Amino acid sequence: MATATRRSNELRPIRIKRRFTRNAPGSVLLTAGGTTVLCTASALPKVPAWMEGKGRGWITAEYDMLPHSTTPRRGRERGPKIDGRTNEIQRLIGRSLRAVADLEALGERTLTVDCDVLEADGGTRTASITGSFIAAVDALHAVRRELPDPDRYPLRDSLAAVSVGIVGGRPVLDLDYEQDYAASVDMNVVMTGAGRFVEIQGTGEEATFTDDELDSLLKLARRGIRNLTAIQKQKLGRRWPW
Amino acid sequence: MATATRRSNELRPIRIKRRFTRNAPGSVLLTAGGTTVLCTASALPKVPAWMEGKGRGWITAEYDMLPHSTTPRRGRERGPKIDGRTNEIQRLIGRSLRAVADLEALGERTLTVDCDVLEADGGTRTASITGSFIAAVDALHAVRRELPDPDRYPLRDSLAAVSVGIVGGRPVLDLDYEQDYAASVDMNVVMTGAGRFVEIQGTGEEATFTDDELDSLLKLARRGIRNLTAIQKQKLGRRWPW
Amino acid sequence: MATATRRSNELRPIRIKRRFTRNAPGSVLLTAGGTTVLCTASALPKVPAWMEGKGRGWITAEYDMLPHSTTPRRGRERGPKIDGRTNEIQRLIGRSLRAVADLEALGERTLTVDCDVLEADGGTRTASITGSFIAAVDALHAVRRELPDPDRYPLRDSLAAVSVGIVGGRPVLDLDYEQDYAASVDMNVVMTGAGRFVEIQGTGEEATFTDDELDSLLKLARRGIRNLTAIQKQKLGRRWPW
Amino acid sequence: MATATRRSNELRPIRIKRRFTRNAPGSVLLTAGGTTVLCTASALPKVPAWMEGKGRGWITAEYDMLPHSTTPRRGRERGPKIDGRTNEIQRLIGRSLRAVADLEALGERTLTVDCDVLEADGGTRTASITGSFIAAVDALHAVRRELPDPDRYPLRDSLAAVSVGIVGGRPVLDLDYEQDYAASVDMNVVMTGAGRFVEIQGTGEEATFTDDELDSLLKLARRGIRNLTAIQKQKLGRRWPW
Amino acid sequence: MATATRRSNELRPIRIKRRFTRNAPGSVLLTAGGTTVLCTASALPKVPAWMEGKGRGWITAEYDMLPHSTTPRRGRERGPKIDGRTNEIQRLIGRSLRAVADLEALGERTLTVDCDVLEADGGTRTASITGSFIAAVDALHAVRRELPDPDRYPLRDSLAAVSVGIVGGRPVLDLDYEQDYAASVDMNVVMTGAGRFVEIQGTGEEATFTDDELDSLLKLARRGIRNLTAIQKQKLGRRWPW
Amino acid sequence: MATATRRSNELRPIRIKRRFTRNAPGSVLLTAGGTTVLCTASALPKVPAWMEGKGRGWITAEYDMLPHSTTPRRGRERGPKIDGRTNEIQRLIGRSLRAVADLEALGERTLTVDCDVLEADGGTRTASITGSFIAAVDALHAVRRELPDPDRYPLRDSLAAVSVGIVGGRPVLDLDYEQDYAASVDMNVVMTGAGRFVEIQGTGEEATFTDDELDSLLKLARRGIRNLTAIQKQKLGRRWPW
Repeated sequence: MATATRRSNELRPIRIKRRFTRNAPGSVLLTAGGTTVLCTASALPKVPAWMEGKGRGWITAEYDMLPHSTTPRRGRERGPKIDGRTNEIQRLIGRSLRAVADLEALGERTLTVDCDVLEADGGTRTASITGSFIAAVDALHAVRRELPDPDRYPLRDSLAAVSVGIVGGRPVLDLDYEQDYAASVDMNVVMTGAGRFVEIQGTGEEATFTDDELDSLLKLARRGIRNLTAIQKQKLGRRWPW
Repeated sequence: MATATRRSNELRPIRIKRRFTRNAPGSVLLTAGGTTVLCTASALPKVPAWMEGKGRGWITAEYDMLPHSTTPRRGRERGPKIDGRTNEIQRLIGRSLRAVADLEALGERTLTVDCDVLEADGGTRTASITGSFIAAVDALHAVRRELPDPDRYPLRDSLAAVSVGIVGGRPVLDLDYEQDYAASVDMNVVMTGAGRFVEIQGTGEEATFTDDELDSLLKLARRGIRNLTAIQKQKLGRRWPW
Repeated sequence: MATATRRSNELRPIRIKRRFTRNAPGSVLLTAGGTTVLCTASALPKVPAWMEGKGRGWITAEYDMLPHSTTPRRGRERGPKIDGRTNEIQRLIGRSLRAVADLEALGERTLTVDCDVLEADGGTRTASITGSFIAAVDALHAVRRELPDPDRYPLRDSLAAVSVGIVGGRPVLDLDYEQDYAASVDMNVVMTGAGRFVEIQGTGEEATFTDDELDSLLKLARRGIRNLTAIQKQKLGRRWPW
Repeated sequence: MATATRRSNELRPIRIKRRFTRNAPGSVLLTAGGTTVLCTASALPKVPAWMEGKGRGWITAEYDMLPHSTTPRRGRERGPKIDGRTNEIQRLIGRSLRAVADLEALGERTLTVDCDVLEADGGTRTASITGSFIAAVDALHAVRRELPDPDRYPLRDSLAAVSVGIVGGRPVLDLDYEQDYAASVDMNVVMTGAGRFVEIQGTGEEATFTDDELDSLLKLARRGIRNLTAIQKQKLGRRWPW
Repeated sequence: MATATRRSNELRPIRIKRRFTRNAPGSVLLTAGGTTVLCTASALPKVPAWMEGKGRGWITAEYDMLPHSTTPRRGRERGPKIDGRTNEIQRLIGRSLRAVADLEALGERTLTVDCDVLEADGGTRTASITGSFIAAVDALHAVRRELPDPDRYPLRDSLAAVSVGIVGGRPVLDLDYEQDYAASVDMNVVMTGAGRFVEIQGTGEEATFTDDELDSLLKLARRGIRNLTAIQKQKLGRRWPW
Repeated sequence: MATATRRSNELRPIRIKRRFTRNAPGSVLLTAGGTTVLCTASALPKVPAWMEGKGRGWITAEYDMLPHSTTPRRGRERGPKIDGRTNEIQRLIGRSLRAVADLEALGERTLTVDCDVLEADGGTRTASITGSFIAAVDALHAVRRELPDPDRYPLRDSLAAVSVGIVGGRPVLDLDYEQDYAASVDMNVVMTGAGRFVEIQGTGEEATFTDDELDSLLKLARRGIRNLTAIQKQKLGRRWPW
């Protein structure tokens, strides 16, 4: 996949296709290197029971991998137990979107985002977040006139995510599967377009890391997210800022 | 969606893209009118425990709909129970492929096909079968040299499927969602390229039907499948016949 | 079991016992050759949530096999997953009964039919349908005075089912387990007493079939169902037609 | 059901039909008053993994109620959880049979007994035990020649069970559903033909009981079990004692 | 654990600590020999749906063993099936408490008791009952002023439980794990402080027992429960009798 | 609970009791303010199937909360789905221990740690990690002589964890439940005794945070962990360093 020629502070090539399917008002096919995610979104006028009557909305996300997104094929996620990793990822996506949301501006409405991985080559959770933001903007536009105040944005800032890690002793941006497998430290960073942190999840993989390493990783992540934010903005054109 | 102008004995427009994703050796994106299905396939050298040591292979299929394949979004199929309809469909797909297969020519190997519906507008199970055949051919080519006899085809004939039904008293080919909903009789027909039946599933929806109606429906189905077979052949080029 | 002497266009011997148990208003023990099914039915004044307030009723069915209905014993169907075959069969039974039902004549009431296989020797799903019709008539009589109009029949026609198949190259009626296992084509046909089709489910078992074979199978099925209808009528006496 | 005329120290009328179905070597339809249970049994040459290689057998039981065994119909026991009551009962049946068994005489073989309640009017667990013993004898006869020593009985004694309780202040034998519902104390007693205890389960239902009450209940139970033992012996004829 | 020096009619040493944790109004750590159970209880103003509007309360219990309560560690009870033994025990605890309760005096309120075994060395279910009574008293005191009549006791009598069994041919009180494993007969007895029976569950473990053996076991149990009742009373001080 | 008087850079009072139960070789009761966790550990000579034959060990953890650990009582975690939060936490604990482990020094052996929360007042996952380290040391000592090399430590460094957050605009160390609920940013930090990071999980709760805020939080966490490390060392005495 010729990732060898990519520099360690560069993102993998990105392609984004909006309106990939038509039954969902937000539908984004995002490809980053060998990873492809379909992010779809819609907003229905209903909130979970515990939120009813508060005049606020809710945002939730689901994440799944198609069985043939990997080689060899992995089992389809069915049966009594949701895999722990799946759960962590979909909770992360929902929480990240809520961190930039103005839930009151949504009214009593739930924005639901689905991230289905069609091809997996590392970074599926961060690609899901980056794509979800675009799908969310499109889904919210579709209900704009039904919002309590059509001029009040239910999203306060844009949102993008990238992975960074220490591979062979050096900090690397946007790890593919092989790099992720080899990394001693693996970190997912979610930031807003304005450069504020939403989530930092740094993990030593049977290893630990120092303050200095943390600093370099955060610097790389910030650089990657700046690029992703620019791409998002260009793709959304007049739709963002709202 | 302008299906109004389609004649009742015409198929909806079809688009087929092979190699849509790269992690599966067979990967087909098939669009028929407003229905889009991703069919992926691969063949691994392993059979279910009850088949081991017999020198024969196996073919199995899974079917699922992405939540945003419909408007409004439907719940993701998770949790303890697989929906009955899902189960019926994936059993049908697997059985249909096995009906045209030469399982001995496969050797001890399982061909697994996944049909994931990205957009649903009627006919998802028949589109899945039509697309699966192409994905299966590609997946089998990928392991051709590992077969017991590379010149013996594990597929004896091509396979396609179409729905027919009685809508407003008249037989109609290739029903979209609205037509399917309005139909008093609904029939799915699976046939081989040579024109032999593989499956006939005809159901009165709180209604019944006569011998004559059955005849007209089967005639329509045969016509539709002839067209689908021609398209499959053209798409596969030199790969089919094997 | 001496089925060898039966001709290929004859039904297996049938015995039907109404009121086999007393806690259900409809309770039919039906034996067809080596297959015995207990069909019980009752109608309670409650419909599923999605049907409430429409003034119409609903019909649903469940199917199960006792563990010792087969040799050797099969596992009891418990645990998180309902077997796909079980699901298909119980959906078929419910759908077939609804096809001959006048759900408005039922009022807001659910007719529930249980088919529990005590002995299995092929044809358990068709025996279940044939027996269910009788149990349903008895269960509906028990609530006749509570119907919106006691003179309007909630069942518009009688219902029976039979299997047919191609065994050793010849069409055969009412397959027992061994014949079913050997069959290249297996078809279940559900028809009304008036001779209209309700369901046709024909399947090549790793095989395919022609138009002519389809015709012979349907002719045989029609003959078998004529006999079953006569037996049902005789057993129900004054209760049917209603 | 005219149980009013029965005296409080009398059993309800009992009917026992052996060989009710043919696919299980032991198959007993036992009716006690308004309760009908089908007990089936077979013995296969396989033991649970934790018992392998010890030269001993195992006995296990399953219990279930058909949905229409009660009025109104109860839900079918499916889905992720087995009901606690079901579990208690099937553990009791298995444990009781094992208490009179010579598991070494069985060889490495599992006797499996299924008790399926077709009609429930109280005492289904005790009827299940009483019927299971007969089904077990028949199932063991079917494999007699395959036992380590055909002259060594895998069952050392016969087994029967009955319920007793305090209803309206008085001890009553063999409670039907209404009596069971009204009882302040409810006790199930399992004994051998030789008059030894296997299980005593006495429960105050939001009530408690004294030593004297316990004595009267045990006396009644002993009387009932003597009668049941005589009936079992007569039904089994030359088969018991083995 | 030096249980060898204990006489066969003596209880194992008991320690009881009330208010072991603070988030539950009743919280009792009970140690009996090598068995330690944490019993916690609280009473919330809510009853199960089927009890609403009757002015009566309800009592329910749950029981679980921590994985490291045994050597070697046992699997944590998760997943679709609750173990049959767990179910039996928690049903027994709830039923025992209800037998001494005045559910009307509770008002529409549910007392929930949790028994979590921290260390298991036999007798965990009886220790759970003995400890639950104390936790229940404390939990009820916490809501005393909210009861329909603060002077009417929701508990009519105290409750304690002990195991007895026949080990090596002799009756033994309060079996530890090794004794329980070796016992031919195992009996759990639940009694009130006033000496009335609540539950008797006697089981032959692949063995049976006589009337005389039953008598000796009940005598031993009565002796043990007298001691436990005295300890409970002393621990509760002015709280009991209420 | 008088946490008001604690300064924002101080830990809550900690108590640690080793050998709290006896069936597990490592058993630590750790109380931090109003949070109490029982951490138990043992190491058995068996690894998961996918690790067999590699000469390396494995470390795994489970986490659960007793129902009465909170007010009001929460439901017991049973049934088909493990809660997403539970899953995240137990994966975090296992991963953290593995980060400081020398899995080859373990040999083919699995160290299993259970963290059961008896009382919850914030910080249960960090208390679990801090306590697990001590339980792990004790469990490893119990098998020291069975390790491939008794002088090679299976743990390379000590491990402790603490939560920090931004509450009312200010950084706070070791949040209790109320502080956690009020926090706009919540971060869990796991570090080694030598001051290296193992995990950083920082989350904006419907909020975001800056680089500067991140710095202050990390500084606070480092201070807390220094204290926890000192306490661990003192409690373990001669057992650590190994």
